[in-house]
Amino acid sequence: MLLEKLFNPRSVAIVGASTHPGKIGHILIENMLKYKYKGKIFPINPKASEILGLKVYPSLKDVPEKIDLAIIAVKPPAVLETIKICGEKGVEMAVVISAGFKEAGPEGAKLEEELKRLAKESGVRVLGPNCVGLIDTSSHLNASFASGMPEKGKIGFFSQSGAMCIAVLDWALGEKVGFSKFISLGNKADISEIDMLIALGEDKNTNVILGYLEGVEDGTTFIQVAQEVSKKKPIVLIKAGVTSAGAKAVSSHTGSLAGSESAYQAAFKQSGIIRARTVIELFNYAYSLATQPLPKGPRVAILTNSGGPGIVAADACDQSLLQLARLKAETVEKLRSFLPPMASFFNPIDILGDAHVDRYDKALDVLVEDDNVDAIIVLLTPTATIEVEETAKTVVKHAKKAKKPILCAFMGKMEVNKGVRYLKKHGIPNYLCPEDAVDTLEKMWQRQHWLSQPPAEYPHIQANRSHVRYLLEMAKRQGRYHLSEKDAKEVLKAYGFTLPKTHLARTKEEAVEAAKKIGFPVVLKIVSPDISHKTDVGGVMLNLDSPQAVKEAFTEIMLKVRSKNPKAAIYGVSVQEMVQGAKEVIVGFRRDPQFGPLLMFGMGGIYVEILKDVTFRLAPISKREAMEMIREVKSYPILRGVRGEAPADVSALVDAILALAQFALDFPEIVEAEINPLLVKPVGQGCVAVDARLSIKKE
Amino acid sequence: MLLEKLFNPRSVAIVGASTHPGKIGHILIENMLKYKYKGKIFPINPKASEILGLKVYPSLKDVPEKIDLAIIAVKPPAVLETIKICGEKGVEMAVVISAGFKEAGPEGAKLEEELKRLAKESGVRVLGPNCVGLIDTSSHLNASFASGMPEKGKIGFFSQSGAMCIAVLDWALGEKVGFSKFISLGNKADISEIDMLIALGEDKNTNVILGYLEGVEDGTTFIQVAQEVSKKKPIVLIKAGVTSAGAKAVSSHTGSLAGSESAYQAAFKQSGIIRARTVIELFNYAYSLATQPLPKGPRVAILTNSGGPGIVAADACDQSLLQLARLKAETVEKLRSFLPPMASFFNPIDILGDAHVDRYDKALDVLVEDDNVDAIIVLLTPTATIEVEETAKTVVKHAKKAKKPILCAFMGKMEVNKGVRYLKKHGIPNYLCPEDAVDTLEKMWQRQHWLSQPPAEYPHIQANRSHVRYLLEMAKRQGRYHLSEKDAKEVLKAYGFTLPKTHLARTKEEAVEAAKKIGFPVVLKIVSPDISHKTDVGGVMLNLDSPQAVKEAFTEIMLKVRSKNPKAAIYGVSVQEMVQGAKEVIVGFRRDPQFGPLLMFGMGGIYVEILKDVTFRLAPISKREAMEMIREVKSYPILRGVRGEAPADVSALVDAILALAQFALDFPEIVEAEINPLLVKPVGQGCVAVDARLSIKKE
Repeated sequence: MLLEKLFNPRSVAIVGASTHPGKIGHILIENMLKYKYKGKIFPINPKASEILGLKVYPSLKDVPEKIDLAIIAVKPPAVLETIKICGEKGVEMAVVISAGFKEAGPEGAKLEEELKRLAKESGVRVLGPNCVGLIDTSSHLNASFASGMPEKGKIGFFSQSGAMCIAVLDWALGEKVGFSKFISLGNKADISEIDMLIALGEDKNTNVILGYLEGVEDGTTFIQVAQEVSKKKPIVLIKAGVTSAGAKAVSSHTGSLAGSESAYQAAFKQSGIIRARTVIELFNYAYSLATQPLPKGPRVAILTNSGGPGIVAADACDQSLLQLARLKAETVEKLRSFLPPMASFFNPIDILGDAHVDRYDKALDVLVEDDNVDAIIVLLTPTATIEVEETAKTVVKHAKKAKKPILCAFMGKMEVNKGVRYLKKHGIPNYLCPEDAVDTLEKMWQRQHWLSQPPAEYPHIQANRSHVRYLLEMAKRQGRYHLSEKDAKEVLKAYGFTLPKTHLARTKEEAVEAAKKIGFPVVLKIVSPDISHKTDVGGVMLNLDSPQAVKEAFTEIMLKVRSKNPKAAIYGVSVQEMVQGAKEVIVGFRRDPQFGPLLMFGMGGIYVEILKDVTFRLAPISKREAMEMIREVKSYPILRGVRGEAPADVSALVDAILALAQFALDFPEIVEAEINPLLVKPVGQGCVAVDARLSIKKE
Repeated sequence: MLLEKLFNPRSVAIVGASTHPGKIGHILIENMLKYKYKGKIFPINPKASEILGLKVYPSLKDVPEKIDLAIIAVKPPAVLETIKICGEKGVEMAVVISAGFKEAGPEGAKLEEELKRLAKESGVRVLGPNCVGLIDTSSHLNASFASGMPEKGKIGFFSQSGAMCIAVLDWALGEKVGFSKFISLGNKADISEIDMLIALGEDKNTNVILGYLEGVEDGTTFIQVAQEVSKKKPIVLIKAGVTSAGAKAVSSHTGSLAGSESAYQAAFKQSGIIRARTVIELFNYAYSLATQPLPKGPRVAILTNSGGPGIVAADACDQSLLQLARLKAETVEKLRSFLPPMASFFNPIDILGDAHVDRYDKALDVLVEDDNVDAIIVLLTPTATIEVEETAKTVVKHAKKAKKPILCAFMGKMEVNKGVRYLKKHGIPNYLCPEDAVDTLEKMWQRQHWLSQPPAEYPHIQANRSHVRYLLEMAKRQGRYHLSEKDAKEVLKAYGFTLPKTHLARTKEEAVEAAKKIGFPVVLKIVSPDISHKTDVGGVMLNLDSPQAVKEAFTEIMLKVRSKNPKAAIYGVSVQEMVQGAKEVIVGFRRDPQFGPLLMFGMGGIYVEILKDVTFRLAPISKREAMEMIREVKSYPILRGVRGEAPADVSALVDAILALAQFALDFPEIVEAEINPLLVKPVGQGCVAVDARLSIKKE
């Protein structure tokens, strides 16, 4: 297991051990002793000889035995010194509790860079700095200054925020939530969330991985690792810092919409990470994922002893990806045989307020057997007749045999208390309200769905890469960081895109000549390096179906553009084939600093500009993912054809998205690209890229 | 106060009193005694002489004194008998605990009708039947079979579901939530949620009204009462049963979109009711509404001793209607003067993990004074140095003086426990996580915003009502429940709508003649009583700009329609003015069974059909509400003008919506109406109603 000696060291040194109770260097030793760490403990302090009954050594060097883990709580410069000694002495792991690094300003940032370098050089793996430490309940290691040690459990938790660690631990102690490992990542100078995903993924004591993240440095590796790990175990994360930190100047719709939050959303989706919005959701999901099998499908049966909560649960199902199961006829019949006539035999199954435990028992018997039921939610309100603890026992009994998840919402507090405790003790999740149970079950179903998909295959796209490389090289040499329309279109052509037939015309006469060659109707568009939104200045005229119309349009465009942008350099007017009967879409990408090429797709025009009806994925993507993107936008039915229109060539659109993704991967210097509009013609007729913007990274 | 004697009776009779412990008729008496009801108690049972030390009477009639309230727990037929006796004896209030009425099938429903009739005849106000009873903590009345009595508090709670009552009460006992009144409405044979809103609105012990509803019978009165009451006190409701109970056959987009859920949403919005989705939200909101002043504005300051939770709170603000306050320069200066240099002096204000209580104290001093701050959220994680209880005391001290709300999220459980208890005891709300505090504050700000709006004024619209009455009368007599296009347009004209110039043409030649009169370009549309979606069958052709084009279009339409609908009766083709440069919208209404005319507005075509980007209000509406409807749809910017287009005549659109609302109120027999499309021309040029459907209620 990765970081084995961090979690299960045979010996631990505490550098900065203190003789003063209340000091961190003292608490660290107390925690080691109090929670019965089994290995050897070596306190290090040049001025002391004994702390809490342990022999103290003046320096790490003086310890006569091998040390697996050093916990370091000294001033920042001494931290660096200690890491060096660790390297020399063969200490493999270090936890740096000390603050005063990156978080403390430019001076500290320099120290942290130095710490990173030393860690790399010396081969010592470093957790922190500026962290609370870590806890492993299997090895009885509490290498932290946190007050308390959680119970043993199957949840592995890591957090980038020390405060979140402290708050979650305090809450978990109160709620008696068990953990396998509990890790405060601190500034992540060396050990990162990626190491944690790998380590917890390999850890046999962990079956759910939880985390609180504020940012990821190496997004690509993060996704790769998360994809692998989440095939084995669920990963549930909070990603804080959703607020966009001041959008930078961007030149395309893709650029303005494809912010960091979109990138994280895509990354989580593509790697099967379940996202929680709050700490409460984090543990709501974890309870069930840690204890219950995943549902094989979305069909839920709700068993309740009261109408109201049943309705509430049904509402919640209705608004989720889950469905209310349609019970088999024989199930309904069986229910009828033992429930009173006033009961509800359909879903939600209401066994009425005067129910005793036997009705729950028999109903569960039947529901567990019904193949139309993928999951069961058991609701209980503490009526006068109900035996709460007995009902809990019955649920546990059925859950042991059932091959489907059972989640509970025993509602209330005082009367249900004993039952809830019994449920928890036997690994049955219980929720405060039915909505939370439904929300959690939805996440379980999403995970099952994700697991059942075949592995993604990334197609390789043919392209004339050397020509593109030449074009980009030329542009860079000439200091052109926004490609000209001509170059942009040549790039697209090299990646297999179809372009509209186009000619540049400098005069009315040339325009008419061009239109005749192309065939009427045509479009006229101003060509100027200084005008980016051509429509807004009256620089575009559509559907010109005669020589006369072309002539007049040429004159009108020139007049309008000159009056609105008198200083613009005008190269002429481009005469273009008018693509008819096609649907306008936008495809583009922006290079995210953490995750690389973030692809965007949306229906064109108002759908993107006003309704922001767009969707994102990170390249590389598979054919299936490209198709998902298209289906995900709300305006997708437009492509299928509305009001008797022909369906659009979605298959060609998939190819277009894949080609753009390939281009993004092939040329990392492209920071932003957008094809707008891409016209999708009826099925079998392909797409036409009408306009494109490509921006190269300034060097 | 309405229902005074229900909540504060001087004497109570318990009809169906039982000598057997564990029976409801026994528990009812136990609860009266146990919670120290001060008035007289008269158990009624023909077979007993004494229960729990109280003298038992054989019948209500035998009680020698005046009785204010009868609690009834006998078999349904005996309930009816008892109500009669109550009437004769002058008992004003009855709580019917007994089940076996409407909820028990057709037999029970008959009994309930009889109960309703008797209640009306006898003048006895009846709570229930099939309810848990009620609790009033001021009069020490526990007229219920619930186990437990909540503490005194300012929250009035009513519930249509008895199970919810039991669950909420059990939970409240555990959480030590105080209540003024606690009412189980049961089947609502007589006393309804409307009575409760009035009674709790008048109750001086209640300052927040909470409720759980499954349905409302008299929607119009409900809204009127809620509007008045919520001006005085906040009303927070859960509305369960969101799932649409199988949409009925409907003939318009309005009909298919304007379901019961939309009506409730509009009703809550228009009457200032705050909607909670779960019981947890219900009490989250209640805590703060009951104890804190409303924020004057949306600007929030976040004070925290740790970065992570601060980021989480800022994220939540960013995704709400709230804003992060921009602190005054002098505030920032003052913060700098006493906080360590590594602290964050901007919002969120991070006073760092080593903070003691003094930093919270001084920072609150400054934030309370800053006029740019409308509300404060105080976050605390239990770090090693923090004094949790002291910090709670400081918060309470500042909150007492501050004229702005202060909400807390002391995170964790064990370490923060004492502080949280102190906060609660002194009326400062504390939340499990920062997101809940932000969510609650948002609802408080929405309430403040609602309260600050001037009273709605409902304009009276001029209309030729007698002509409309005549048209509808004729249609009804002829058994036409869907008005013909001609009649529908006459109705609209009578309400001041502008219609496009139109002529009916039976031949090509007539069509050309008509087009010449109207002026080119024109639109041709098939006229047939059998075809409702004209576009789908090729029955519409636009933009015909010459006699030749009109002739060809006529032929084409006839051909297409005949081939697709060979059996349709065809009256001819309507030749219409082609309205240019206008935006397509839809306005309509459906008559909701509970709430009456539910108005819908949306941008036309795909925006309604595919994106379902629509909004609802219940008539009557004010000018401001009509404007709100228009602004609420996501596609509203299209009306303001995009890409250099002229802005549309929104003011004329407001008038159109108001006219339609008036029509809906004037003619209750219209069950569904839709103007689709209504074309909104540029500012100053008005709207044109191109097509309309009106359906009359079948008698």
